[in-house]
Amino acid sequence: MSKANIIRIDSVDDERIAAYRDVRERDLVGRQGRFIAEGRVVLNVLFASSRFAAESVFLRENRLAGLEDLLERIDDDIPVYVASGDVMDGIAGFHMHRGILAIGRRTQEEDAAALLAKMPPAALVVALCGIANHDNMGAIFRNAAAFGADAVLFDQTCCDPLYRKAIRVSVGAALKVPFAKIENGTAMVEALESEGFDIVALSPAGRIDICAVKRGRRCALLLGAEGPGLPGDLLERLPSVRISMREDFDSLNVAAASAIALHRLWQAPE
Amino acid sequence: MSKANIIRIDSVDDERIAAYRDVRERDLVGRQGRFIAEGRVVLNVLFASSRFAAESVFLRENRLAGLEDLLERIDDDIPVYVASGDVMDGIAGFHMHRGILAIGRRTQEEDAAALLAKMPPAALVVALCGIANHDNMGAIFRNAAAFGADAVLFDQTCCDPLYRKAIRVSVGAALKVPFAKIENGTAMVEALESEGFDIVALSPAGRIDICAVKRGRRCALLLGAEGPGLPGDLLERLPSVRISMREDFDSLNVAAASAIALHRLWQAPE
Repeated sequence: MSKANIIRIDSVDDERIAAYRDVRERDLVGRQGRFIAEGRVVLNVLFASSRFAAESVFLRENRLAGLEDLLERIDDDIPVYVASGDVMDGIAGFHMHRGILAIGRRTQEEDAAALLAKMPPAALVVALCGIANHDNMGAIFRNAAAFGADAVLFDQTCCDPLYRKAIRVSVGAALKVPFAKIENGTAMVEALESEGFDIVALSPAGRIDICAVKRGRRCALLLGAEGPGLPGDLLERLPSVRISMREDFDSLNVAAASAIALHRLWQAPE
Repeated sequence: MSKANIIRIDSVDDERIAAYRDVRERDLVGRQGRFIAEGRVVLNVLFASSRFAAESVFLRENRLAGLEDLLERIDDDIPVYVASGDVMDGIAGFHMHRGILAIGRRTQEEDAAALLAKMPPAALVVALCGIANHDNMGAIFRNAAAFGADAVLFDQTCCDPLYRKAIRVSVGAALKVPFAKIENGTAMVEALESEGFDIVALSPAGRIDICAVKRGRRCALLLGAEGPGLPGDLLERLPSVRISMREDFDSLNVAAASAIALHRLWQAPE
């Protein structure tokens, strides 16, 4: 028997589910450390996390039967709202075909220096400048988790990894891999270097082929946005690395590039 | 001076631009070999292609000034419609922030056997089963082009690479890399084997690590959808290959997996 605290919602105007109203628009404005988690896999990650807490869960009634395992994990002080498909779609503002939502909240925020200070001796870190696209951010987190990255750092021009779509595309990895924001690329590089990280700066015009890179014991992969790429001053002072490809081809998507580079760097360091 | 045949459109009801009406919905129904190309890079690929032709171009008036190079390439028998932003958005049915569209059409359709028969001696082919997501299809084409794949084959359960979003995500690669549809995975494998291709079947539970694969002279990378993966009968009869990752991590996105595998297979064959 589930101990979950199930509350039936019959009206789109019910104030108890106000946090779920118009989730698409709500996602883009001030969220006070809160975020929307969608889908069974992501909710399981949320309930297993020590850095995030669930405030409430919102389920489509026809999904309840298949979610016993999830409901078992939900403490009874967390309301589990349940509504019909029509009421749920009316509240969310569009068709919620998965019908499994939660409001999560960050329980701790760490600065980059504190996060880096506790990295393991052979850490792999992903460092991002200018990744403003939610899909790319989510996909990079998914790849970071797949290849055992210990943290993700990002500058002020990156989007928040806790956007609904970034979390969804990451399949929950945005709630798994610890992250911290830092003001800009220069500060990020300095923080990494002061903790003994070798930095691999990925660029289409990089001087070293990724296949020839021997990673250092502590290694950071630095990625910039497609198009502008990494700031020139950073590329000049760091070893720049390229993924070789057909000469007449423009460039890879930054998430695809992260997959290739992280797969190469994941091997045990020298 | 551009020779382009520029035609001013002032009404959303103008029948000359009927093909652009409600492009999002139109994309999903019968398209009679036609497709929507978006953005400067994709239009340049379209105008350079021998397998596709443009039927018309549709530009937002404030984009005209920066597109002299593109307009130079457009024959004067192809109408170039120009409208204000409001008229264009009204026609397309949503905000067209790029403001650069064309209707393209396939001028030839090849079956898989004919396409494979003319592959070069050391060809690299991507073979897809069940890739129904437009973003993944577009991203796989982009990776295929980056790493010099000579063709893409796909089964009946894959989506059309000429969907608007697949072309856009591919950054035009869907119009560059030749492709053909074939009824199912078994027929695809037989067609590849009869042309002397070694097939690398990618699977999270693959027997060989991708890092240990020595590619054959003719090589095909076989990819299935996330979740279901490749059909069991194909995995049993083919050498299955995995991308090793953290043990507690579920799986990579199929486009990310294609990037890693194609980057590994792209090297000159033995």
